Amino acid sequence: MKAHIITIGDEILIGQIVDTNSAWIATQLHIHNIAVSQIRSISDQDDAILNALSDSQNQVDLVLITGGLGPTKDDITKQTAAKYFDTHLRRDQAVLQHVTQFFESRGRTMLEINRQQADVLEGCTVLFNQYGTAPGMLMKKESTTYIFMPGVPFEMKHLMNTQILPRLTQQDHTIFLSQENIIVGGIGESYLAEKIADIESELPASIKLAYLPTLTFVRLRLSGKGSDQEAITASTKYYAEQIIHRLADHVIANYDTTIEEFLIQKFIGLNLTLTTAESCTGGSLAAMITAIAGCSAMYVGGTIPYSNKLKQQLLGVREETLLQYGAVSEQTVIEMAEGAKKKFDTNYAISTSGIAGPGGGTIDKPVGTVWVAVAGERETITQKFQFQNDRTINIERTRQLALFMLWQLLVKEHQIGISL
Amino acid sequence: MKAHIITIGDEILIGQIVDTNSAWIATQLHIHNIAVSQIRSISDQDDAILNALSDSQNQVDLVLITGGLGPTKDDITKQTAAKYFDTHLRRDQAVLQHVTQFFESRGRTMLEINRQQADVLEGCTVLFNQYGTAPGMLMKKESTTYIFMPGVPFEMKHLMNTQILPRLTQQDHTIFLSQENIIVGGIGESYLAEKIADIESELPASIKLAYLPTLTFVRLRLSGKGSDQEAITASTKYYAEQIIHRLADHVIANYDTTIEEFLIQKFIGLNLTLTTAESCTGGSLAAMITAIAGCSAMYVGGTIPYSNKLKQQLLGVREETLLQYGAVSEQTVIEMAEGAKKKFDTNYAISTSGIAGPGGGTIDKPVGTVWVAVAGERETITQKFQFQNDRTINIERTRQLALFMLWQLLVKEHQIGISL
Repeated sequence: MKAHIITIGDEILIGQIVDTNSAWIATQLHIHNIAVSQIRSISDQDDAILNALSDSQNQVDLVLITGGLGPTKDDITKQTAAKYFDTHLRRDQAVLQHVTQFFESRGRTMLEINRQQADVLEGCTVLFNQYGTAPGMLMKKESTTYIFMPGVPFEMKHLMNTQILPRLTQQDHTIFLSQENIIVGGIGESYLAEKIADIESELPASIKLAYLPTLTFVRLRLSGKGSDQEAITASTKYYAEQIIHRLADHVIANYDTTIEEFLIQKFIGLNLTLTTAESCTGGSLAAMITAIAGCSAMYVGGTIPYSNKLKQQLLGVREETLLQYGAVSEQTVIEMAEGAKKKFDTNYAISTSGIAGPGGGTIDKPVGTVWVAVAGERETITQKFQFQNDRTINIERTRQLALFMLWQLLVKEHQIGISL
Repeated sequence: MKAHIITIGDEILIGQIVDTNSAWIATQLHIHNIAVSQIRSISDQDDAILNALSDSQNQVDLVLITGGLGPTKDDITKQTAAKYFDTHLRRDQAVLQHVTQFFESRGRTMLEINRQQADVLEGCTVLFNQYGTAPGMLMKKESTTYIFMPGVPFEMKHLMNTQILPRLTQQDHTIFLSQENIIVGGIGESYLAEKIADIESELPASIKLAYLPTLTFVRLRLSGKGSDQEAITASTKYYAEQIIHRLADHVIANYDTTIEEFLIQKFIGLNLTLTTAESCTGGSLAAMITAIAGCSAMYVGGTIPYSNKLKQQLLGVREETLLQYGAVSEQTVIEMAEGAKKKFDTNYAISTSGIAGPGGGTIDKPVGTVWVAVAGERETITQKFQFQNDRTINIERTRQLALFMLWQLLVKEHQIGISL
């Protein structure tokens, strides 16, 4: 089964919002063995919408469309779709009742533009939207199924989960997918590729290897495709094991995960606790950890001692240290991490201090100078990084590398490395 | 001038990464008065790339392409582009020298696949990439200019800023754009639309109004287009003022900004300071603030008292309060905010405590129950929110609403509302 995703709305085309909806839809379709061959963002103009709808017709089995179903004048998807399917809009009484209740339960007055939310394409299957006022709609044209959804992320996700994915997975499958993921750290993409070049050359045509680098980690993804489920699964697994064996010490995990998810699981399994003391990362390292449900079993909390005063007050960093070496120094991050570990009584503590930019650099410590310390059960490790002048990237790199250092110390102190 | 953006690579199509590159490029082009009419993500397959390149030919003036220029085998953009332009690859000596230096300065051995990074399309203009090993390339075919860039965000941004945008803006313009942005809070999209319906109906064809809602705020964007720069600017401004006048108390800013940028500017202007005490938002509110350069002039730092123990230790929340009312309660967030404000000697403090989910809910306090307090100079305000069961959205809503509450209290205590 093949699919296209179309998002409608000027806000993506002028860069005012990032298209996270398509990424989420693509993930879901991938899990359900539906291959997305194109994602397209188009303007909320009549002709752009008509072109996109007809370009996909008979090219793919399924087209998922988000956006342009709202109550305001710039939302023209329904009117344009009516033209494309050569039909008209009818007011759906069940949806109207839902919209009316939606407003009543919130004590809000209903307006005529809200009533129009109950207008649907004549001939469509209505996909009821419990979380909002714009219903989804399913229409067929020749061999292609078109599904229209609202662009509000949680409404779209709700419709996908409760109404769309269950329909799609009722089909039977004749082609099986198999996937193996390997998360690698501390090695660049080219080195990685060179190290496993012979394994890559040996891969059969049915297995594809992708390199998915972030700023600090590389995710290797082996994707197998075949009609014999058992054979393709075994074959993909075989090559994954070859790669893991070759890369040895660099392999963080042999499944699809993130460094933060991986560490949280290990910490909980080993009954260890963590605190964070962030200056230059300003809470974003903690946010990365606390985004994961269940983290409270290992993360007791942390501090963001942005000012020197708070470094002293919250963590007991000594005034002499700050005066002699400065806030961005090895001595300061050591005192921050060790102070945090002691004060909050945890097994591990991470601290960061740096000049994220664009201002604040000096000759000795140019913008992009960052110190990170990780205090563990037996030792404290530190590292200095010299990045460029991009605040967002410097914060992102620092939080990833800080977690990589935590992984390194945990491997050393608790032998959590991968073994086959 | 019209443009298309194409991103090449399976990782977007299977949802493994979000296409932030296109959003950034679209923003830049929009600022430079270049209209992006389509953003397209395609697979790193020969035929998909050839189709996308030829679909854009003579349809737009400019095509910006990212991805597929890396050193590994799944990167086939250069080879495919050579076919499309009916040319071949040549090794560029200047690029080769740069790549060699790049490896030498990092003390890394150079591999043959790294040398291949110096291969460029015969006949292209080479766009030198100071930050990486894959150069950009500019090629023309009939009336369309194609520009190839690496997919690594900071390399792409560097090429855009130093080599591509300067070229594009050398053209002269005959059509002028004018834009007005209005940031609105505390009012839903439909209400907003109804409140300004008559102004919207009056808009001339040359001015378009877009509603760009986030979870908590709505950005209204008026875009004018015309050949008389002065007239279109004045006309767009006129309608923006009508809208601001009508929406009055809901208008946060009359220019393109974010709530956090806006508040940081106001705090610095008024010489005020802020601290944060985050339980359920886990550092993400602080991260939102510290992502903005210059925030250290008003943000002294904060705490993430995730455990009850840290709520007491860091902020002086009383044990009786936690026992009697629980961590997720009005009493606790008041003690957190007031304790933080007093301990860290700031003018304002924000605190959050809630059950972000998916676990941890009870009958009295289901998942999605969140309390926020803002302690100000004369009073402390609190609000309870009842969200659904989506951890990411609950954290995001909470941090946005917490900043909205801070804005409300600042309007009250410092009269920072918009006046025309």
